Amino acid sequence: MAQNPHPRLSLNQATTRSAPLAEVVRACAGAGVRGIGVWRDSLANAGPRRVRTLVDDSGLTVTSLCRGGFFTATEAAGRAAAIADNRAAIEEAAAIGAPELVLVSGGLPGSSRDLPGARSQVADALDALVPYARDAGVRLAVEPLHPMFCADRSVVSTLAQALSLISDYPATDVGVCVDTYHVWWDPDLRSSLDSLAGRIALYQVADWVVPLAADALLSRGHLGDGCIDFGSITSAVLSTGYDGWIEVEIFRQEVWDAPAEQTISRVITGFGRLVAPALPLPAADPQPEESP
Amino acid sequence: MAQNPHPRLSLNQATTRSAPLAEVVRACAGAGVRGIGVWRDSLANAGPRRVRTLVDDSGLTVTSLCRGGFFTATEAAGRAAAIADNRAAIEEAAAIGAPELVLVSGGLPGSSRDLPGARSQVADALDALVPYARDAGVRLAVEPLHPMFCADRSVVSTLAQALSLISDYPATDVGVCVDTYHVWWDPDLRSSLDSLAGRIALYQVADWVVPLAADALLSRGHLGDGCIDFGSITSAVLSTGYDGWIEVEIFRQEVWDAPAEQTISRVITGFGRLVAPALPLPAADPQPEESP
Repeated sequence: MAQNPHPRLSLNQATTRSAPLAEVVRACAGAGVRGIGVWRDSLANAGPRRVRTLVDDSGLTVTSLCRGGFFTATEAAGRAAAIADNRAAIEEAAAIGAPELVLVSGGLPGSSRDLPGARSQVADALDALVPYARDAGVRLAVEPLHPMFCADRSVVSTLAQALSLISDYPATDVGVCVDTYHVWWDPDLRSSLDSLAGRIALYQVADWVVPLAADALLSRGHLGDGCIDFGSITSAVLSTGYDGWIEVEIFRQEVWDAPAEQTISRVITGFGRLVAPALPLPAADPQPEESP
Repeated sequence: MAQNPHPRLSLNQATTRSAPLAEVVRACAGAGVRGIGVWRDSLANAGPRRVRTLVDDSGLTVTSLCRGGFFTATEAAGRAAAIADNRAAIEEAAAIGAPELVLVSGGLPGSSRDLPGARSQVADALDALVPYARDAGVRLAVEPLHPMFCADRSVVSTLAQALSLISDYPATDVGVCVDTYHVWWDPDLRSSLDSLAGRIALYQVADWVVPLAADALLSRGHLGDGCIDFGSITSAVLSTGYDGWIEVEIFRQEVWDAPAEQTISRVITGFGRLVAPALPLPAADPQPEESP
């Protein structure tokens, strides 16, 4: 199998969701993909220690843990449970060596129509979690989701909004996860990215494919199958000083139905064609094992 | 049938799309709905003159014509054709007495990934159309569509973006169409509305219902079936000085499958429960036949 020549490419595990983590790690290592973004449900099965050993033994680096968040409880007990669950996620991130825990805020609580109230609930939860994450050495990565998920997945919809939510915390404690799928449409994308210098904790890529899938959540596509201009967004992300991993994260039934090796091969090709040209030459990159 | 007590309520014809316009106009008049937003395909069938006579004879007022726009051609001939079609739409609006022509910009041209380019194409088209609309006495109403339609329906996604697109033209020539469904999620909604004083040409309402329909375009719902806070948005719209019609516009298969009279009855109830409380008392309103 040809070796992936892109040292900053990481595979987010959701892209090969149908395959067990051990198979995905093996396939990544075989293809020369050096990073992997891990999902919590894998840890629930194998336990953080075995997952860490598995990834370490393969020579891969864990680039993120997905995900915490969902601060949508309507009562105090539910809110406390969400904080407890997020503390557990922070511990898991530390245990597997994930530098970032991705946070998805959650949508409107219950049948609420109070969007400002839901947003302030997210701010309260961050306030409770930041000290805990700092102590654990895990950076929180707040991810704005596309506005079509505002009601049911994330009341944080834009990069500017995410930045205003986190700007009171040190950049080393809380950053933003920039995902092309969620932000590509934003008329203020360039200026928002410029404001995020030092604040980008993770950069994820997936394409926007029309028509939307019947389940809109599964509309993300392989790079090149949609309409996103990865070159210009990647350049803007890099111009903020971001020098970390770039995760390819795709939720799509056809992608999940394909064998993991085939998907990883497609990921490498798409990345090479659409993202890599915006990156400095690999030879000039630091080795991602040291300081991605 | 109980008479609709809301003088500013207008039914957008798309809400009763399965019924012929004559039936919808009769049902509106019977229910005391005093305004109707008309779609161009009705005019294609009956001709503007007959439609105007039909609406006038029923005592209704045409509140808008939907819609022009779709400036997505990749070549000069296609762009000229789009301008010509929009000129025809302006003439039709004037012919039926519609004060506003709603414009939906269109998405990315062809297989383009050049979003800034697509947006500048919209600006060019507006520049060509504004003088023509002014001469015809029709105001153009640029409608930002929800970002989930950015690729295929509208590269204009937010109110702030729409305002920056039109701010060089007189407010009497070009305004913005504010549709709750498209803008409810916007973290900058309140400040954007504040900036739109005198620039709101039309206010449309529909609810955001989850899960999204398999065809996302048909996810709009009756007021109260979703999660939009109509009270606060309506208050913010009114605080800009907007004193015009409020169109209920719903695309949804179940709504289209219902008899027009039943749909209109639901529209009146939802409006009365969720929008009307934010309006000044009807008794204090000017009669909409005179100056809606």
